[in-house]
Amino acid sequence: MEIVSENYSFGGCQTVYTHRSETCGCDMTFGAYLPPQARHGPVPVLWYLSGLTCTHENAMTKGGFQQHAARHGLAVIFPDTSPRGTTVSDDEAYDLGQGAGFYVNATRDPWKSHFRMYDYVVTELRNLVTEHLSVQDKHGITGHSMGGHGAITIALRNEALFESLSAFAPIAQPTQSDWGRKQLSAYLGDDETAWAGHDSTLLLEEYGWKGDILVDQGASDQFLDLLKPEALADMMARRRQPGQVRMQRGYDHSYFFVNTFASDHVAWHAERLL
Amino acid sequence: MEIVSENYSFGGCQTVYTHRSETCGCDMTFGAYLPPQARHGPVPVLWYLSGLTCTHENAMTKGGFQQHAARHGLAVIFPDTSPRGTTVSDDEAYDLGQGAGFYVNATRDPWKSHFRMYDYVVTELRNLVTEHLSVQDKHGITGHSMGGHGAITIALRNEALFESLSAFAPIAQPTQSDWGRKQLSAYLGDDETAWAGHDSTLLLEEYGWKGDILVDQGASDQFLDLLKPEALADMMARRRQPGQVRMQRGYDHSYFFVNTFASDHVAWHAERLL
Repeated sequence: MEIVSENYSFGGCQTVYTHRSETCGCDMTFGAYLPPQARHGPVPVLWYLSGLTCTHENAMTKGGFQQHAARHGLAVIFPDTSPRGTTVSDDEAYDLGQGAGFYVNATRDPWKSHFRMYDYVVTELRNLVTEHLSVQDKHGITGHSMGGHGAITIALRNEALFESLSAFAPIAQPTQSDWGRKQLSAYLGDDETAWAGHDSTLLLEEYGWKGDILVDQGASDQFLDLLKPEALADMMARRRQPGQVRMQRGYDHSYFFVNTFASDHVAWHAERLL
Repeated sequence: MEIVSENYSFGGCQTVYTHRSETCGCDMTFGAYLPPQARHGPVPVLWYLSGLTCTHENAMTKGGFQQHAARHGLAVIFPDTSPRGTTVSDDEAYDLGQGAGFYVNATRDPWKSHFRMYDYVVTELRNLVTEHLSVQDKHGITGHSMGGHGAITIALRNEALFESLSAFAPIAQPTQSDWGRKQLSAYLGDDETAWAGHDSTLLLEEYGWKGDILVDQGASDQFLDLLKPEALADMMARRRQPGQVRMQRGYDHSYFFVNTFASDHVAWHAERLL
C-alpha cells in the first residue's frame, strides 16, 4: 500500500492509499479514515460503498462521515466503485464500466478480467485493511445508491462478516430496474437466475438479516423509480425484518442528503459495533 | 435571481442562485443555505468567503457548515471568488484573474472592468441577499485562505456592517507575501500605499476590531510561509486585541481542516449574532 495523501481531520487522519489489486488486476485506490481513538488501539471498521460515477473521493470529501466516526471511534473505509485504468474496459455510458462496478464479479467479456468488485470488497480489501491498519476485525457496512445496493447484498450474502448494516437510497431491486438489468446483463449474462444473488429485495426474502437494518431514502429523490425503495420496504414488512426504512421528506439523491443523515448512520453502526 | 439548484440539507435548503451583477458586469453565482428556522422568520447571516481557485461550490459541498448553521439558526452565503465568463479577463496562473479576485476593486487594466469583488460582496450581494431571502440585516463574516483575507479586511473596513468575525488560515499579510504582492500589484498598481487597505495585519494595526476575532490555522499547513499567521498574531498581541489565533497541531490547508473547525466557527458567530 502506498500513501497518496494524508489529511488531519477531526483529530484523526484521512488517508488515501493505492495498492496493486490481484482481484481486479489493476491498481486500486481507497480512502481510510482513522479516528483519534485508533492511536490507542484498534477500532471497528465501517465500510462506505459509493454510487455510480463516484470514486473513493466523493463521500470522503462530501459525506461528512469523519466527524461522527471521530466521535464514536470508528474507522471508515471508502473503496472505489470499479477497477480503473487505460487497460480496463469501459463504456461510454456513465452507468456501465468504470465507475459502475455494481459490486459483482463479472463473468462475461469484456468485463470479467477486471470487474470483480464483489471479491475485491469482501475479501481482498478487507484483508488488506484488517492486516495493515489499526482496526479490529469487526465490520459494519453502508453505502449510497449503487453502494447501498452493494452494502445490503454483500452483508446479506456474508452474514458472518458484518455486525451492522445500513444504506442510503439503495438500488433496492436491480433485477427490476434500468439501474440493474443493464449492468447485471452485461456483467453476468442474460440468465436472470444469476442476478438474484445481487438483488437486495430477493436476498432479503431468501436470507433475512440477523440484525436490524437502517435505510434512509429521500422522498423527493429524482431517481425513486429506479431505486424502488418500496420493494425493499415491502419485503422487510412481509418478513417482519427488524429495521426501518425512513422516507425523508424533501430530500433528494445528493450528498446533501447523505451528509444530513451520516450522523444517524454512524451512530447506528457504533451502537452495534462497540 | 434565478435558482440553479435546490437541495434539502439538515432540514433547511441549500440553494444556488445566479444573477446579473452590475458591479462585476457579468452573471454571478452564489450559494445560500437557509436553515429550518428561516421558515418561521428571518435569521442572521454568516458570510463564507472562499479561497484561490474556488467557486461558490467548494465550501458548500466540502465545508460541512450546513449542519451547524441548522443547529444554531444561521443562514450561510457562499459567494464566488471572482467574476466569471468568456468576456472576463483571465490569467494562466491559478492565483490571478478568474478564481482569484482577492476581494478588491481593481483599478488597473485589464482587470478594472469586472474585478470588483469588494463592492460585490460588501454592497451588491449583501443588498440582494438581505432583500430577497428570509434573513435579518445582521451579519457575521468568515472565510478560508484568500477568503479569510477577504473576511478580515472587509470586516475591519466596515465595522458597522458586521457583528462577528473569524477566519480559517487567512492570507494574513498579503503586502509581504507572494500571495498578495502579485495580485495587489496587478489589480491596484504598483503604489503600495493602495495595498495597505487590503492587508489584515495593517488594517488591524490601524483600526482594531470592535469585537473579538477567532482565527484557526493549521500548524502543518503547506502554505504557512505565504499565509504569515505570525504577522496577524503579533499584531493582535501588540494591540491586545480580543480574540485568539489557534495553531492547530497536525492540520493542513485543506477542507478537512475547514470542516473540522466549522462547528467552532459557526458557534462563535451564533453567539455574537443571536
